[in-house]
Amino acid sequence: MQNKSEWELIIIGAGPAGMTAAIYAGRKQLDTLVITKDVGGQALWSYKIENYPCFTFITGAQLVERFQEHLQNFGVRIEYTSVVRLSREAETFAVDTEDSRRFFAHSVIISSGKSPRQLNVPGEMEFLGKGVAYCATCDAPLFAGKNVAVIGGGNSGLDAAAQLIKICPKVYIIEIQDDLQADKVIQDNVSRADNVEVLTSTEVKEIRGDNFVRSIVVRNVQSGKVDELQVEGVFIEIGLVPNSDFVRDLLPLNERGEIPVDCSTCTGIPGLYAAGDVTDVPHKQIICAAGDGAKAALSAYSYLVRRPSPSPNDK
Amino acid sequence: MQNKSEWELIIIGAGPAGMTAAIYAGRKQLDTLVITKDVGGQALWSYKIENYPCFTFITGAQLVERFQEHLQNFGVRIEYTSVVRLSREAETFAVDTEDSRRFFAHSVIISSGKSPRQLNVPGEMEFLGKGVAYCATCDAPLFAGKNVAVIGGGNSGLDAAAQLIKICPKVYIIEIQDDLQADKVIQDNVSRADNVEVLTSTEVKEIRGDNFVRSIVVRNVQSGKVDELQVEGVFIEIGLVPNSDFVRDLLPLNERGEIPVDCSTCTGIPGLYAAGDVTDVPHKQIICAAGDGAKAALSAYSYLVRRPSPSPNDK
Repeated sequence: MQNKSEWELIIIGAGPAGMTAAIYAGRKQLDTLVITKDVGGQALWSYKIENYPCFTFITGAQLVERFQEHLQNFGVRIEYTSVVRLSREAETFAVDTEDSRRFFAHSVIISSGKSPRQLNVPGEMEFLGKGVAYCATCDAPLFAGKNVAVIGGGNSGLDAAAQLIKICPKVYIIEIQDDLQADKVIQDNVSRADNVEVLTSTEVKEIRGDNFVRSIVVRNVQSGKVDELQVEGVFIEIGLVPNSDFVRDLLPLNERGEIPVDCSTCTGIPGLYAAGDVTDVPHKQIICAAGDGAKAALSAYSYLVRRPSPSPNDK
Repeated sequence: MQNKSEWELIIIGAGPAGMTAAIYAGRKQLDTLVITKDVGGQALWSYKIENYPCFTFITGAQLVERFQEHLQNFGVRIEYTSVVRLSREAETFAVDTEDSRRFFAHSVIISSGKSPRQLNVPGEMEFLGKGVAYCATCDAPLFAGKNVAVIGGGNSGLDAAAQLIKICPKVYIIEIQDDLQADKVIQDNVSRADNVEVLTSTEVKEIRGDNFVRSIVVRNVQSGKVDELQVEGVFIEIGLVPNSDFVRDLLPLNERGEIPVDCSTCTGIPGLYAAGDVTDVPHKQIICAAGDGAKAALSAYSYLVRRPSPSPNDK
């Protein structure tokens, strides 16, 4: 069992889509392996989740714990590593991992999610971990008592700001668009704080510092006015890029690097499905990822039971 | 407010799809009315739910209660009545209800779900409520100590059987196909019971009785052999029909009476969305309905904010 390399189903990634797919695969008693760097995906980064139905309020860590508890009932095996390549080998799929192992499966569900997008300005990489952060939920406590800037005025930016206003004397929110893009509910909550300053139509030009971040240079895109804000923390919350590099040779991706799927999560290659934020489904929500993860597992099950032989339940 | 008849968004039905749509609409601060006969939909009928992620086990009633608690935070108004007709009136939708009221909305989400399908055999209507039932969760306790038959070997049939084996001396499961269609997990649980008898390739010809059901006549579709089973209860669990009659004049339905939707829940009519079991999405699962309900609300929001004026948040 330890060295088993052939599976009916391999699920790549274990965020809400992958975990739900694994729960459904477990219920269908498919011989399933999950390959993932971590369990939880982006849900782990969320401090406050108020829109997963049946939980008025839950932290990302708590929700992930509940997903895991649920999944544990089904005895689905998890390998903790990254996938570097997915390819076809005759009638099966081959999955190569970072630690140079190779697994095979008759069907694969890609639910590898997204990673934070970089700002690509001078100083960003230099000060990464020295004041530059991509996950307020993980890193906010390190910035207690310091002035900080959140780059990005969408839900994740405002969620970051909501955490930071409680512990920082001053929180700038920098948004390049004319308006904040976040849900009104979150905007209202954050804008009530008197230590918040929102700068719209504003872009970041540079992150400056010595051993640690000391300031950011910003520019108003309408007036052209340049300013330097004294901050010791920069939370970059400007969106995400799909973790789809490992599938580039196998599937066409859209212009954002997402995997196109149909309404049943099919990628166009029989036996290969994708669900959650790595796909071109526009609704990047935990509940949508979970729903589509279930669809992917049911689609994979239908595919597997219709294969000539052996059928998944005949072994 | 009491007599308000014009809304930005009307959601028809409040099962998992409609409740999730309402939670999302509430978060987006859309001016929303839910029109529904009851809150919970088919989820209410389920005794045991083991596949809504984050709940290893929960009853349908408990899950619905949690959905309701979540929804109550957003102050979304609910009118308890049935919709008899949905039509276009100039730029808005008109929703007529059973109690002769008429509501208007700029956008509508149809999440009216399904109702149990009838067997259409002699005796079914005659003995309805006198031994014939469509909801084991609701009615099983009435049959304690009696021999019963469950018609249908899918998940809902086996779920019914799982409840009945605990309280009935004998439970027949009648399935017209060669095999039971339910998840293996449920099949295994039920088949372990020694008071269960599974009759596959078997159809029901008639339900017989006096004041109450006394027997059913069954026929093996392969051998043609007819038999009479002495039962006092018949649970009909052969599937569901979509609650879509009220929209027949407005939208083309598929051959099963379901509303065709695209991956974003759009019906083809701008501003009109559908989610959950009333649609042609093949995955009839609570988590899928919830995910698609969220998509519908986000689609409606995108539509409403892009209308010329007034924008939903400018009033």
